[in-house]
Amino acid sequence: VETPRLNEFLGHLEGLEMSRQEAVLETFSRDESQLEAARPEVVIFAKSTQDVARCLMWANKFQIPVTPVGARSGKSGGSLCVAGGVALSLSRMDQVLNLNAIDRTLTAQPGVILDALKARAEQVGLWYPPDPNSAAWCTLGGTIAENAGGPCALKYGVTGHYVLSMEWVTPQGDIVRVGAQTHKGVAGYNLVQLFVGSEGTLGVCTEATLKLIPKPAHVITALFQFRSMAQALAMVSSAMTQGAWPRCVELLDETALRVAALPEIASTSQAVLIVECDGSDEAAVLSEMDLLRTLGLNSGALEPTVAQSAAQREAIWQVRRNVSLALKTLKRFKLSEDIVIPISRLAEAIESIKALGRSRGLLVATYGHAGDGNLHTNVLFDDPSERPTVEKLLTDIMKLTVDLGGTITGEHGVGSAKRAHLRLEQSPQVIDIQTKMKQLFDPKGILNPHKIF
Amino acid sequence: VETPRLNEFLGHLEGLEMSRQEAVLETFSRDESQLEAARPEVVIFAKSTQDVARCLMWANKFQIPVTPVGARSGKSGGSLCVAGGVALSLSRMDQVLNLNAIDRTLTAQPGVILDALKARAEQVGLWYPPDPNSAAWCTLGGTIAENAGGPCALKYGVTGHYVLSMEWVTPQGDIVRVGAQTHKGVAGYNLVQLFVGSEGTLGVCTEATLKLIPKPAHVITALFQFRSMAQALAMVSSAMTQGAWPRCVELLDETALRVAALPEIASTSQAVLIVECDGSDEAAVLSEMDLLRTLGLNSGALEPTVAQSAAQREAIWQVRRNVSLALKTLKRFKLSEDIVIPISRLAEAIESIKALGRSRGLLVATYGHAGDGNLHTNVLFDDPSERPTVEKLLTDIMKLTVDLGGTITGEHGVGSAKRAHLRLEQSPQVIDIQTKMKQLFDPKGILNPHKIF
Repeated sequence: VETPRLNEFLGHLEGLEMSRQEAVLETFSRDESQLEAARPEVVIFAKSTQDVARCLMWANKFQIPVTPVGARSGKSGGSLCVAGGVALSLSRMDQVLNLNAIDRTLTAQPGVILDALKARAEQVGLWYPPDPNSAAWCTLGGTIAENAGGPCALKYGVTGHYVLSMEWVTPQGDIVRVGAQTHKGVAGYNLVQLFVGSEGTLGVCTEATLKLIPKPAHVITALFQFRSMAQALAMVSSAMTQGAWPRCVELLDETALRVAALPEIASTSQAVLIVECDGSDEAAVLSEMDLLRTLGLNSGALEPTVAQSAAQREAIWQVRRNVSLALKTLKRFKLSEDIVIPISRLAEAIESIKALGRSRGLLVATYGHAGDGNLHTNVLFDDPSERPTVEKLLTDIMKLTVDLGGTITGEHGVGSAKRAHLRLEQSPQVIDIQTKMKQLFDPKGILNPHKIF
Repeated sequence: VETPRLNEFLGHLEGLEMSRQEAVLETFSRDESQLEAARPEVVIFAKSTQDVARCLMWANKFQIPVTPVGARSGKSGGSLCVAGGVALSLSRMDQVLNLNAIDRTLTAQPGVILDALKARAEQVGLWYPPDPNSAAWCTLGGTIAENAGGPCALKYGVTGHYVLSMEWVTPQGDIVRVGAQTHKGVAGYNLVQLFVGSEGTLGVCTEATLKLIPKPAHVITALFQFRSMAQALAMVSSAMTQGAWPRCVELLDETALRVAALPEIASTSQAVLIVECDGSDEAAVLSEMDLLRTLGLNSGALEPTVAQSAAQREAIWQVRRNVSLALKTLKRFKLSEDIVIPISRLAEAIESIKALGRSRGLLVATYGHAGDGNLHTNVLFDDPSERPTVEKLLTDIMKLTVDLGGTITGEHGVGSAKRAHLRLEQSPQVIDIQTKMKQLFDPKGILNPHKIF
């Protein structure tokens, strides 16, 4: 953006907290996507819906790009200011505004940290299920923008399933309310679900009312080891057909297993499943885990290790959460993908992906949410010069995914990272519908430009 | 539509099954909404996606109104051809195309009867939870168009929560695929959830892939009687705060109770709750019902009657399903509403609605899904001349609903019936966004005109 135009725009925003300091701009130029840094020209810290509305109204008038930013924990570059302009931070708007235990609803601002929100619900025995890996530092707004999931999505669904209504600021700076405060509501088009997952391209969420459910009183976590990936996936398939409904089925392949510091792993183990059951009745949860144990043993698993305490459970999950980082001990760089494969094609997919990696001379580690087919395939490499080959491999993987009836992203979003891949999955007509909708909402294209399409 | 234009249009549709017989047009002029009959000029029975595409392409060229029609079981007039033109019946497209027990997905055409679809899933131990009252005769396509719910929505959500992807014909006759075949998927805008509940105004669903879940092995149904509505609603509130998660909590007020042929109802009972718990473990289900029994007794309920057999369960539900019809034994006419009230305001809402009815000299019966606040308030009257007063009362009820933080429709949709009321709930800006989206998809306004807005 030319400096005079930017300055004129900023002149209309007196009283707003903002920064143009190098260190701040540098911080806001990165997220967790491993994409190239993209520097904003100014960071504006909104403290209220009015701040957001003012910022967008003037940005629209002066055609200044605005990218809404939460905790920058996204994996697809959704919060990167690739066109410069404003990084609009929502992190100061971090309050839980209302919690109604009878209505089982919670209303919060977008900057609240997800774990803080979840803790508030748990104080009254209620639960907000979405549990992305970054729950301890990501913000509600970011999870809404990307429609985030997590391990529990298998049984409990993703963010969108829990968003009932939103206060929303349009790219023109108008403040609207969409959706209903109640668990049910079908009046008009479902704008809430259109906005959830729109990656900050259609407007900015400034308040959301969420559906809560009773917190399951009992949770059991068990670790199953297999001598082969095929055995592990056979267990997943049999769990699906035998009526099991664990809340998580997380997979680690042999590469992920090698770097993960899981205790008591046999040297012969080539794959691990972390399986978690929950419910209101302890005996019922034990009985479901017993069914899964039988299915596991029938598929060739070793006797599963069942966590005997909250500390042991947490230790297992700590390892699972650290896999992403631990893989960087193998190679300097990694690119993490987020594909979803139909469960019935998982074995074929993982085998083919390994083979594709080998044919390009690259190591691929796969872990993730096997229970719903959402795999994080990580391409590992040591030298930046390998990047073009890595990109080719990623395209191979995306093509395979689509061929197997899957999707290129299960919970990270398209952002900047997967723009080129979207065309592998969606027809020109479907993309055309979406670009027209973007134009309808944001004719000047100021809001998070160059994302998704 | 002028006859020459209609005839020219129909001339392009040779080979399609259609009818212009009086009896057929008469049949297709009504649904279950009690709204004025609206006669199509021709009924076209699509047998394939190609038929739908051809019909829409030519209708768009000749500007012929087209209203997609399933079983005409809707309650808001969504399938009424209020602008004449074509009733496009999808009832011949009634096949289940695929059922994958490992992927827990089912793909079907829109004309399949909901209970048939549910039965197919149950053959492999899986379950499709949406259970509108009309499940034995409504079609999948109609439930997608209206985002239908039912008693089990309390625990399991509504239709939209289970629609993963769709084949969709645009108003221009283009065939597109939206969504992903997998349980998870966030690529691009959520067009699936935009289309679900769009009441046939944005396009026509010709195929849908649905998410299935394990069928709960155990279900217990109990009937709680109370000496007052306040007691019944106190039980609902305490169930919410005490961690209970029944799958249904259905309410009958004293008027509904009087006409319903429930067995063993005490003469002093003024309200009834039908409470149903489910799960994979019998003891756990019994234990949850035991918690609910305690909460009921603490709220003043008589000892609940627990169904001792599938036949007894079915008998209770048969009565519940017949309430709507049974109310017509009290008065010749009734208008059924579909409001949702936050649980914490339910008692206030029901009392106020009765009072509003009294002040207008009209009898109001309330029953419905108290567990999620979705009430069917029925205004009963004998003489068509009372209709204007009834309309005034409905407006009073809608205003009250919105004032209490509720929504005007929980599962029936806006259709023709609640067009005027939508403005009570949604701001002009929100309605403007939606009308612009309608224009974007259907610039000539041929598809189900005059609905929602």
